[in-house]
Amino acid sequence: MNEQIRNSLEIHDYLNQQKQVVDSYLDDFLPSASEYPEIIHEAMRYSLLAGGKRLRPILALATTDALDGDFHRAIFLACALEMIHTYSLIHDDLPAMDNDDYRRGQLTCHKKFGEGIAILAGNALLTQAFQLLAEIPGDESLAPTKIRTIHHICRAIGSRKGVIAGQVVDLITQGKQFTRKELEYIHSAKTGALIEASVYTAAILAGADRDTRQRLRNFGSTIGLAFQIVDDVLDVTGSPEELGKASGKDTAGHKATYPRLYGLERSREIANELVEAAIQELSFLGDKSEKLKELAQFISIRRF
Amino acid sequence: MNEQIRNSLEIHDYLNQQKQVVDSYLDDFLPSASEYPEIIHEAMRYSLLAGGKRLRPILALATTDALDGDFHRAIFLACALEMIHTYSLIHDDLPAMDNDDYRRGQLTCHKKFGEGIAILAGNALLTQAFQLLAEIPGDESLAPTKIRTIHHICRAIGSRKGVIAGQVVDLITQGKQFTRKELEYIHSAKTGALIEASVYTAAILAGADRDTRQRLRNFGSTIGLAFQIVDDVLDVTGSPEELGKASGKDTAGHKATYPRLYGLERSREIANELVEAAIQELSFLGDKSEKLKELAQFISIRRF
Repeated sequence: MNEQIRNSLEIHDYLNQQKQVVDSYLDDFLPSASEYPEIIHEAMRYSLLAGGKRLRPILALATTDALDGDFHRAIFLACALEMIHTYSLIHDDLPAMDNDDYRRGQLTCHKKFGEGIAILAGNALLTQAFQLLAEIPGDESLAPTKIRTIHHICRAIGSRKGVIAGQVVDLITQGKQFTRKELEYIHSAKTGALIEASVYTAAILAGADRDTRQRLRNFGSTIGLAFQIVDDVLDVTGSPEELGKASGKDTAGHKATYPRLYGLERSREIANELVEAAIQELSFLGDKSEKLKELAQFISIRRF
Repeated sequence: MNEQIRNSLEIHDYLNQQKQVVDSYLDDFLPSASEYPEIIHEAMRYSLLAGGKRLRPILALATTDALDGDFHRAIFLACALEMIHTYSLIHDDLPAMDNDDYRRGQLTCHKKFGEGIAILAGNALLTQAFQLLAEIPGDESLAPTKIRTIHHICRAIGSRKGVIAGQVVDLITQGKQFTRKELEYIHSAKTGALIEASVYTAAILAGADRDTRQRLRNFGSTIGLAFQIVDDVLDVTGSPEELGKASGKDTAGHKATYPRLYGLERSREIANELVEAAIQELSFLGDKSEKLKELAQFISIRRF
């Protein structure tokens, strides 16, 4: 077995095991499907527990581990990040946005529950995420750290360079000519900002110093961009079965993507270069950075 | 001039003056309309600065005043509450929800900017509200209070008895027979919870003791219910010009309302009784409660 295959098997084992941890806490943190009004909790659970790589929570947990942070605090943050990610997917899939029928291998939330409930389920996941952040366990001395975490997440998902900003530019450039600057903005805001925040807020919560936080932030923003480039590539090369959602949609919808601007081959190269650069950022962590490095490598080799 | 008319003029003067204060801070706290991506900030400003009574922020400021709390902190909370209220209105007006064309005397957000941007503008206002709560000025010793404030707001607007829960039950009972219990649930969750939270979180932020918080919470929940009953009555008796939105919609849509269950006359009586009961709750505040009492009275005499 060559080294690349062994590494690939190891990272998939690690991802699967971490995904199970995250899924079990997500299940705990969500209202039960029998709680009134049932349909909203069914819809939240349907979309959140459907699967997904759990990349953002796993990145937050790996960062916590690398910094010897507290798992029992970090898991609240990790689950909040996944709730926020799922909220953005539910809204992104709506007819007024990307109009997608499948996500994570099943019908999208609005196809299953109707648009009204889908909008509210997204809102409820966002709200539940903030509640979870407010509930991070710890005595009152942790409160300033919790406030900083909440504040950074608001910026990462807001209308100024955050997830919402990325969704807006994605929406208004659909079917139009777009510039390289717009493409980079969409990727950095819509996907990069929350991936970066997953690493950065875990560092805040673990009590990392300014320098450490900044290096991890660079790592996060670099792998965030690599992740989105690979996503664009997979939209061209992947099958719906592998992706759990429609493929070829970006090309059909004339969306801003890397392959459209740079071609497939060069896009793959750029993603690999970014992952290498991101890993360089972690050298200060020594052995502690192993899982984060593997996660970065997974981003460039992933097929889903 | 009889006493009732004089009181009515006084409360309108007070409301107008407070509304100007709130509007000026909302303007400051929102991203400028020239900030990229412009359309989302235009949409947020369009819906938030369109007008509206500003009842929730004014209740928060009056509560702060009654408890000798700090205005410069409370105004952050007050503006966050109005952003949250506006987010819920924008989403409520969408075709998949209430499908309204007019709100606050102008086209609804989705009629003006399209559904995609309206969904995102609502999301952005909710996110900006949490950011504002995290930015309440004060040293680190205020952080536990800010966390409690954020936590309570999450509960008040969430999927379990909060605003979202109320929207869900409102949505699923449209055009159907509904029970008195469902009607009360919708009113208490969709409208009551945020009005109650406006008073209660202002009390938290002002550092009020447990007993004071509880009395103010009772006051808030009682006027919240009265407010919604008057809203139902005005939907029957008011004109679109007075209301700034379509009237008669609840009846046409067979929505759960008080007049449908109790008739107009008895609904008005119930609202008046609730306002009187709410005012009784405030006796412990003595003279300090004057503005809160006037706000409660305004709720029963309002025509818009």
